Amino acid sequence: MTTHSIATINHLIKNKDTQTLIRVLGPLSGYEIAHIIVKRKVVDQVLVLSLLSTEQASETFEYLPFKVQKNLLKAIPTTQAANILVEMAPDDLTAFFEELPQALKNEYLNLLPKEERDTATHLLGYPENTVGRMMTPDYLAIKMDWTIEKVLDYIRTYGHDSETINVIYVVDDHNILLDDIKLKEFLFAPKDYQVHQIADNKFVALTDLDDSQKAINIFKEYSRVALPVINAQGVLVGIVTIDDILRLASQNSTEEFQKIAAVEVLDESYMDIPFFSLIKKRARWLVLLFIGEMFTATAMGFFEDEISKAVVLALFLPLIISSGGNAGSQSSTLIIRAMALGEVKLKDWWLIMRREILAGALLGCFLGVVGFSRVTLWSAFSDVYGIHWLLIAFTIFFSLIGVVLWGSLSGSMLPFILRRCGVDPATSSAPLVATLVDVTGIIIYFVIAMGILKGTLL
Amino acid sequence: MTTHSIATINHLIKNKDTQTLIRVLGPLSGYEIAHIIVKRKVVDQVLVLSLLSTEQASETFEYLPFKVQKNLLKAIPTTQAANILVEMAPDDLTAFFEELPQALKNEYLNLLPKEERDTATHLLGYPENTVGRMMTPDYLAIKMDWTIEKVLDYIRTYGHDSETINVIYVVDDHNILLDDIKLKEFLFAPKDYQVHQIADNKFVALTDLDDSQKAINIFKEYSRVALPVINAQGVLVGIVTIDDILRLASQNSTEEFQKIAAVEVLDESYMDIPFFSLIKKRARWLVLLFIGEMFTATAMGFFEDEISKAVVLALFLPLIISSGGNAGSQSSTLIIRAMALGEVKLKDWWLIMRREILAGALLGCFLGVVGFSRVTLWSAFSDVYGIHWLLIAFTIFFSLIGVVLWGSLSGSMLPFILRRCGVDPATSSAPLVATLVDVTGIIIYFVIAMGILKGTLL
Repeated sequence: MTTHSIATINHLIKNKDTQTLIRVLGPLSGYEIAHIIVKRKVVDQVLVLSLLSTEQASETFEYLPFKVQKNLLKAIPTTQAANILVEMAPDDLTAFFEELPQALKNEYLNLLPKEERDTATHLLGYPENTVGRMMTPDYLAIKMDWTIEKVLDYIRTYGHDSETINVIYVVDDHNILLDDIKLKEFLFAPKDYQVHQIADNKFVALTDLDDSQKAINIFKEYSRVALPVINAQGVLVGIVTIDDILRLASQNSTEEFQKIAAVEVLDESYMDIPFFSLIKKRARWLVLLFIGEMFTATAMGFFEDEISKAVVLALFLPLIISSGGNAGSQSSTLIIRAMALGEVKLKDWWLIMRREILAGALLGCFLGVVGFSRVTLWSAFSDVYGIHWLLIAFTIFFSLIGVVLWGSLSGSMLPFILRRCGVDPATSSAPLVATLVDVTGIIIYFVIAMGILKGTLL
Repeated sequence: MTTHSIATINHLIKNKDTQTLIRVLGPLSGYEIAHIIVKRKVVDQVLVLSLLSTEQASETFEYLPFKVQKNLLKAIPTTQAANILVEMAPDDLTAFFEELPQALKNEYLNLLPKEERDTATHLLGYPENTVGRMMTPDYLAIKMDWTIEKVLDYIRTYGHDSETINVIYVVDDHNILLDDIKLKEFLFAPKDYQVHQIADNKFVALTDLDDSQKAINIFKEYSRVALPVINAQGVLVGIVTIDDILRLASQNSTEEFQKIAAVEVLDESYMDIPFFSLIKKRARWLVLLFIGEMFTATAMGFFEDEISKAVVLALFLPLIISSGGNAGSQSSTLIIRAMALGEVKLKDWWLIMRREILAGALLGCFLGVVGFSRVTLWSAFSDVYGIHWLLIAFTIFFSLIGVVLWGSLSGSMLPFILRRCGVDPATSSAPLVATLVDVTGIIIYFVIAMGILKGTLL
């Protein structure tokens, strides 16, 4: 990646050997420099940034994590800060501003020249998690009556600034999007053709209020590297590039994983998050689940007499309720993911309910047979389950069917209920489903036991 | 998306109105047509494909799921099948062949002309899940001594076929990759310049044996839409485009989700998978976990005497062991995801172990305090826990610390152990950790109870 090892560069920074550093850092990309300085002290980071060209400094800045960015901006002179912000790509700039507290946001916005400031405030006007926030206004738009020659001249003149010029957009006089044409089409067309002669008047576009998951799905379907963004009136307002989408998709998945495991979204990587933030993100859910799980003690309290009469029932309790929890977490995870990918919609609930009831009953039967065999086998060789072992075996068999069926059903329906209430379905984490199933599973188990064992063990 | 509604098109297909269909389908993209015919009967799909241009038919074919593709190829005439395969993008073709059983693979490979066949078999020679499988050989390579004019002519002549010509690759006489240059650089450079005058001799490349997750991470870091692939000798062997990476990233996440929820990878979407396949994918893990969980019954058997002496102990059992399971599934999910993103490496195990022990102890304390308060409060107003309520409260307090600590520790270490053994860490699903913690949690709980309650309740 670089001819000079990172160790050498670190050594140069330590010795403040600015002459050599300028030479060594010159050919490196912003990503590489960010990588080198990200873990260093702020003074060292300021030193390095001051040795770079403005463009290189901006690129480096874009690749640094938000916290480092914030500390750096405070540490460098205001003019340098302004230069860095002005050079940043509009979508990266918006992402940076998004994280800032309101007071700081205004302070930094004022560092920008009017045009850049307008763009940033415009993008920040869109609700969070919408396409509007992710887009950049750096695209090239042309008209239908331009000649190919004029288009190529236009690209040569204005193409430097635009984030991607693989696709050129055709608009009418009111900036309504009419077509998207690949750059290579212009290379292959005769110079005196007009744009409308190579246009097919077909395009795929995002709308500014689409949510980010929808944008990800559209990018996946159409294999594009950039998509135009239009507003409700069809006016071209920006473009979104696929590299931002890839990063967003990965971030969305990570958040979904954390929610499913009943952890609040970390916002930082596991390795970077401070210890007490991590504790906070985990503790809230753990305590909530613990309070929910307390109902198991209450539920068991109702059956205290039964347990003291037949301690053997307590032995199988963890086995039974955990099976329900496992089936439930399978169902909820499958449904949550399918919802995130857009494969399952709210209206499918009835279809899925029927399917999960069948699946739960069948899976419960499998486990029931294994559980039944276990009690039967053990009883054949020992006397652990007493003379009523067959009744106990049946209790276990039917309880497993009931609990696994209930687990699958509630695991699959909870995401629908949450989504219907406007809550992210991923919040129906596997542990939440397990807790729900634990409490109800105890009741199912003891009620079945009382039905089967009444008059014998109970 | 289309001027004619899908309902109209379905109606036309039903009536076999080929004349109108040709007109209506003509302007549609392959994605749109695939969307319309994917759920229809094979005869209808064959009819529609026969009405399309070869290029359009190939594009449509690329967007169909593998099973539909296979049935279609069997149903259409061999020459049409060959035409469709020849027109497919090499990476999509490889993905298709990858799924075929060996016999069919050879049959279809033989339909291809020698050149295409060589490419396909070459790509199939790479191990699964490597960059080699995903790449396409459709790129443009130029030499350092070419003039800009020659390059542009070359692009005009050969650019049509290549998947992406946003970036042109510079190679030496032995095809060793020297540089990657954006297409727009050529547009902005004087025509009589030679390539080496605009080259910076810096490039980012994947190697053909990189695994897919590494490729995803590199794409995310460098914000590229395509990356060249080199072999161990530095020879340019293909390119990988970001749209394939985006699809792959999403697929990888889905598989990770399914593994974490203890479901075997579905291979199909939740809505498309046949009922019995779904059962099979879920049953194997459920039964395995059930057999593991049976050890809870065994473990509890050791403490049967204690339970019959102090039934109150059984009441808190689900609460205690599930808390350990919840903490464990938090830890394992966080670590699995961080590993997948490349944030956590094998060598970090010691750092994470110390952190998780501290986190587990602290979180256990929180829950312990809540549990302690519950017993104390209930005992203040009732007599449910008898005269030894304070001892019971302490038993619960210390058990929670022990179990949550153990849960966090084993949840975080299991992914490392699995990875060290060459198994995908995502296999240490939350339910697997919960099962492990259930069995050991029972032992922790009763041992602590025996220590504290000996001579009083026990």
